[in-house]
Amino acid sequence: MKEFDTIAAISTGLSESGISIVRVSGDNALKIVGSIFRTRNNKDLNDIKPYTMRHGFIVERETGDILDEVLVSYMKAPKSFTAEDTVEINCHGGIISTKRILEEVIRQGARIAEPGEFTKRAFLNGRIDLSQAESVMDIISAKTELSMKSAVKQSRGALSEKINEIREELLETIAHIEATVDYPEDDLEEITASDVSLKLKSIIEKMSEILSTAEEGKIIREGLNVVIVGKPNVGKSSLLNYLLHEKRAIVTEVPGTTRDIIEEYINISGIPVKIIDTAGIRETNDLVEKIGVNKSKEKINQADLVILLLDLSRELDNEDRKIIEFIKDKKYIVLLNKSDLEVKMDITELNKLNQDYVMKTSIKTGKGVELLKDIIKNLFFNGEINSKGFILTNTRHKEALIRGKESCMQAIQALNDTSAIDLASIDIRDAWSSLGEILGETLQEDIINKIFSQFCLGK
Amino acid sequence: MKEFDTIAAISTGLSESGISIVRVSGDNALKIVGSIFRTRNNKDLNDIKPYTMRHGFIVERETGDILDEVLVSYMKAPKSFTAEDTVEINCHGGIISTKRILEEVIRQGARIAEPGEFTKRAFLNGRIDLSQAESVMDIISAKTELSMKSAVKQSRGALSEKINEIREELLETIAHIEATVDYPEDDLEEITASDVSLKLKSIIEKMSEILSTAEEGKIIREGLNVVIVGKPNVGKSSLLNYLLHEKRAIVTEVPGTTRDIIEEYINISGIPVKIIDTAGIRETNDLVEKIGVNKSKEKINQADLVILLLDLSRELDNEDRKIIEFIKDKKYIVLLNKSDLEVKMDITELNKLNQDYVMKTSIKTGKGVELLKDIIKNLFFNGEINSKGFILTNTRHKEALIRGKESCMQAIQALNDTSAIDLASIDIRDAWSSLGEILGETLQEDIINKIFSQFCLGK
Repeated sequence: MKEFDTIAAISTGLSESGISIVRVSGDNALKIVGSIFRTRNNKDLNDIKPYTMRHGFIVERETGDILDEVLVSYMKAPKSFTAEDTVEINCHGGIISTKRILEEVIRQGARIAEPGEFTKRAFLNGRIDLSQAESVMDIISAKTELSMKSAVKQSRGALSEKINEIREELLETIAHIEATVDYPEDDLEEITASDVSLKLKSIIEKMSEILSTAEEGKIIREGLNVVIVGKPNVGKSSLLNYLLHEKRAIVTEVPGTTRDIIEEYINISGIPVKIIDTAGIRETNDLVEKIGVNKSKEKINQADLVILLLDLSRELDNEDRKIIEFIKDKKYIVLLNKSDLEVKMDITELNKLNQDYVMKTSIKTGKGVELLKDIIKNLFFNGEINSKGFILTNTRHKEALIRGKESCMQAIQALNDTSAIDLASIDIRDAWSSLGEILGETLQEDIINKIFSQFCLGK
Repeated sequence: MKEFDTIAAISTGLSESGISIVRVSGDNALKIVGSIFRTRNNKDLNDIKPYTMRHGFIVERETGDILDEVLVSYMKAPKSFTAEDTVEINCHGGIISTKRILEEVIRQGARIAEPGEFTKRAFLNGRIDLSQAESVMDIISAKTELSMKSAVKQSRGALSEKINEIREELLETIAHIEATVDYPEDDLEEITASDVSLKLKSIIEKMSEILSTAEEGKIIREGLNVVIVGKPNVGKSSLLNYLLHEKRAIVTEVPGTTRDIIEEYINISGIPVKIIDTAGIRETNDLVEKIGVNKSKEKINQADLVILLLDLSRELDNEDRKIIEFIKDKKYIVLLNKSDLEVKMDITELNKLNQDYVMKTSIKTGKGVELLKDIIKNLFFNGEINSKGFILTNTRHKEALIRGKESCMQAIQALNDTSAIDLASIDIRDAWSSLGEILGETLQEDIINKIFSQFCLGK
């Protein structure tokens, strides 16, 4: 185990609550907390048994004033989250008292932890690999149960296992090639170019299998972006409200968005679907121009799917046509709303469009709207969501796998061209290295640092 | 110990964070958590030792799917926060995973805890009295270190001790009176009306001593409301920014306020001071009328102190005069700002006002502004803040003490009027009962429920 200084942070959400935790990790964790911890019977914290806790008080060392009544627990290295000695101070969830306790811990010699530094240490200390570390953050930021379970699987090594297996095979192949090239006189069974090709093809198949889950995985992890568009008074807000009404896993409003655009998560069979209602945008008479200049344009560009609302009770007008023109290169669904009113729209014009679905609805009566969820599910998952098997959710992992696969294909190409197995071994080594990035073994330090810097504080 | 059902709640702040805790309390806490907890070696949670923790996984009982990797800790009754068997599930701080774990605990037979119910149980189980329970919430919501420390003292029984002492003396007096009245023939030393009066006077003195800290206590706990007023461009926002620049303990912007009125906490020698800048209010030409109709009026009415800003570089006009008229019944300070510019204001007119301070300042150069904090401190604390001794912070306690004191005074009155000590004993009993309300001993259940309902969830 490498040696690090002792770090500390508030690991719980910092709001007024029942409990908050100050976590301290490193060789001096126990000594530092011990110096500001008092019990009724003056017991020394240094004799605390691992995996037990003790009731007492954190005092301000300078004055002896009690800062809070706490429970202190001790996880001895390497059996802790960081694989280092870890002490957790479980205190009343006050913002001031929690901050003051952290401050006191820092005064006794700990350093404020950087975002993700606890998890980074678990990685640097070899307790978990990088893909497992990344999954910790995925568990925390999961928007639905499905994405959470998928992250939990990854944290337990589901991906690492598959990647290790493939790397093992790559390494064996390299070893075999090198033995054949370096010791041709030996009794070793020689590996031929066609043997290597065959082996690589089987490896590529395994990579492809993992990669085939990536699109689904990305959606499960990051969710689908669905944007609702349409001219004023076609029912955009009503549709949003209808969809939200049955929401089961709305986590939070997206922070940092303007008040003009409403974004909410709904849960469609475990997929987090972010619904963006452009209705909130202040509408001028010239809506289309507005769309062109303001944020809706950006939102539509980023969307995985656009839902266009048209009003059956009015004739198709130029405003509708301009919106259709604007979204024509996106994946989109047309909802012909207000089917409960007298139909005035001639929809033959819509037949030449390349939208995926046109459906008559009445958001008011609910007609057709329920089907919308099934349509969305069908469009992205062929109706079936892989909730049990392994799913590749992380774009970084996907890219590393694609590069690994490409290297293997180059190796095959080299073998086809020259039959020189030692040339192929360079590509195979590249593949091995690319896959190593997923586990963090062959990744540069600055990239690793960047990954952890995106974690939340206290993790 | 009374018997209760088993309750559960998320006790940490519910945001994406490193750790969150699901707390379960009651007779079945261990059994319930044990039914969804798995370890690698299949150990039964029921054999966990008190005050230890165990690493493992929470599973969805129906599917066996792992919901999260957790640490489970066990506090055995009565040595726990609630004085009941308590299990805490320490999990990754994801919103979905934490909620799902709580859901699973509920499915196994626990009930969602009401706000404050854990603390309420600590009270109902006799581990702490009501004033101690209330201080728990004060610790959590403390805005400065001073208010936090004061709450910690109360949680450790500082107030309860004083109240118990006085109640003991009242009870002794009652007993003495009753013995004198009921068994006049006995050998007991009789108590006379003048004895009782003397005793009561000494008790009243003790109550007064506690009550004398109440005004200070209220400010320490709830903070001071300071409102900045003045016509446009006198420097209101600059003053706010100046004061905020040195803020040390700003906890949060006050939620729920409109964007028009800016409210921030600053820390003046440990006192949370809420500064309200009315500058954000959209100013019409007729500012005074505005003040009359909008929220500033309300804010000024609620203020403990008003800071009026006048612009020395302009002449005193009717707008200024109207504002002065409006705040004349409040405690207020006048800052004559822009003293760095050419003085055009004739301030003799201000001399007839009843404001507490008039001071020339230049927020731009900083002249005089630093003194403002000392002035505020002086106005409310005579310059000295009682940071070491005991302070009465809670209005409910104050009112109970006032009622107790009044009953004692009535008793003295009765003794003066009739010398009938048995009549006085009724009043003394009332005093005893009033003081019991502070500890929760003589309080009606619905009032107790109301107190706990103001707690946060999970506490």
